Amino acid sequence: MKISKSHPRHESLVRREKLVRAWRDGVVVPEGLIAHGRGEAFDYLLGEESSAPALVAEKAAAAFLVRAKRPVISVNGNVAALAATQVVRLAEAIPARIEVNLFHRTEDRVRRLVKVLEKAGAEEVLGPRPDARIPGLDSKRALCHREGVYRADVVLVPLEDGDRAEALVRMGKTVISVDLNPLSRTSQRASIAVVDELTRALQHIEEFVLELQRNPNEAARIARVYEKDRNMRALYSFLNWRLKRLGARGRSRKKAAHA
Amino acid sequence: MKISKSHPRHESLVRREKLVRAWRDGVVVPEGLIAHGRGEAFDYLLGEESSAPALVAEKAAAAFLVRAKRPVISVNGNVAALAATQVVRLAEAIPARIEVNLFHRTEDRVRRLVKVLEKAGAEEVLGPRPDARIPGLDSKRALCHREGVYRADVVLVPLEDGDRAEALVRMGKTVISVDLNPLSRTSQRASIAVVDELTRALQHIEEFVLELQRNPNEAARIARVYEKDRNMRALYSFLNWRLKRLGARGRSRKKAAHA
Repeated sequence: MKISKSHPRHESLVRREKLVRAWRDGVVVPEGLIAHGRGEAFDYLLGEESSAPALVAEKAAAAFLVRAKRPVISVNGNVAALAATQVVRLAEAIPARIEVNLFHRTEDRVRRLVKVLEKAGAEEVLGPRPDARIPGLDSKRALCHREGVYRADVVLVPLEDGDRAEALVRMGKTVISVDLNPLSRTSQRASIAVVDELTRALQHIEEFVLELQRNPNEAARIARVYEKDRNMRALYSFLNWRLKRLGARGRSRKKAAHA
Repeated sequence: MKISKSHPRHESLVRREKLVRAWRDGVVVPEGLIAHGRGEAFDYLLGEESSAPALVAEKAAAAFLVRAKRPVISVNGNVAALAATQVVRLAEAIPARIEVNLFHRTEDRVRRLVKVLEKAGAEEVLGPRPDARIPGLDSKRALCHREGVYRADVVLVPLEDGDRAEALVRMGKTVISVDLNPLSRTSQRASIAVVDELTRALQHIEEFVLELQRNPNEAARIARVYEKDRNMRALYSFLNWRLKRLGARGRSRKKAAHA
């Protein structure tokens, strides 16, 4: 399907196309398509723009990544399909390791994801030869790399499963989630919950990383003053205001959801 | 995957499994999986129960279906995958015709859907040999049956695409949508918008149909007093209240969204 650039839902439709293509290529699983739909619904409600509370969380995420000793970005099928380029750019900017971690893991799919990331410019991607386990997760879902997620102090886990986010927090790591659903277990459990669309979030985090690298004092200050609960309350207030407005005005052409 | 009945998200997980299986069987398309995810997100927000405004709309839907001269239930891939039995039961109760209408139409998929519906007990399913067109839609999406959707006075279009819902309204039909997204074009354009999960909605409509068939005066009264705008305002108020509550209390184990 060709998608006209003038279509009011252009970016959203392009993302869907990318995912369906990645699913045909064995990178994305059907469950990933359903999960993407859940995110889309929240993005409509949020107005398909980064909210002020999301930007606050993104800047905090950047501060923790800049100050980390062993930062890692965890990548699954949807993340590779939607934002391989942004992941690679961010990993280079920090710099951080990239590790493929699949909820529905098969060795074939791990290899396919590594290829997608390498094509986007990644030089060394962890994932294919895991040598450690995340405690408290069953078999395949626990697999990880000692020099990657296992020993990381700060992990960025975009579109992560709730169980794994929780297990990583239990290991004492600073867990940064990117998830459009503020009610998801991942958002609830993460140390820093970025409630924003994946590509927007990664771009903002990269910009903040470059900014804070030039200003370590500011990075330290932001890492110190960020309060997750306050940030989430602001996010809920914003969502409530959006919903009230949508309900009152009915549907505006640009922002409302496609059937 | 085996899903434990005690899992707090049991029904939601069973629905996902059904859809993924139907996708493997060529009944559901990848876009249908994404659309299902959008619905899931709204169902979490609504508390995964039928709201009072949804029940009002379901009763109005039943009143219009009972009073219709040529009622038709339109079925697509997701509807067949999730609720073939409920569709057949409702069609028998009214009685109404069933017509397969696909957004991503292939003749093979139409035949597969007809089989799913026949297996669920349907005797005559329209769809495979369309002989009419819905004005204003492009080629394949316009196809329909003269004795089905084309001449229907009341059409129930669960999980319908916005363009088609709009085109049916333009034809002067009473269009009843079932769509968890109150902001979707389908919900906005429908004559009666049922904002509820598909299987719950169809079961309620069937119960109300049986009730109103015994009481034609009540059916007439309900068809007369239903006001869509008022109903949607009540729905938005409910959604707002839910969101405020979720935001204030944080996440309750039972109702919150799976990552």
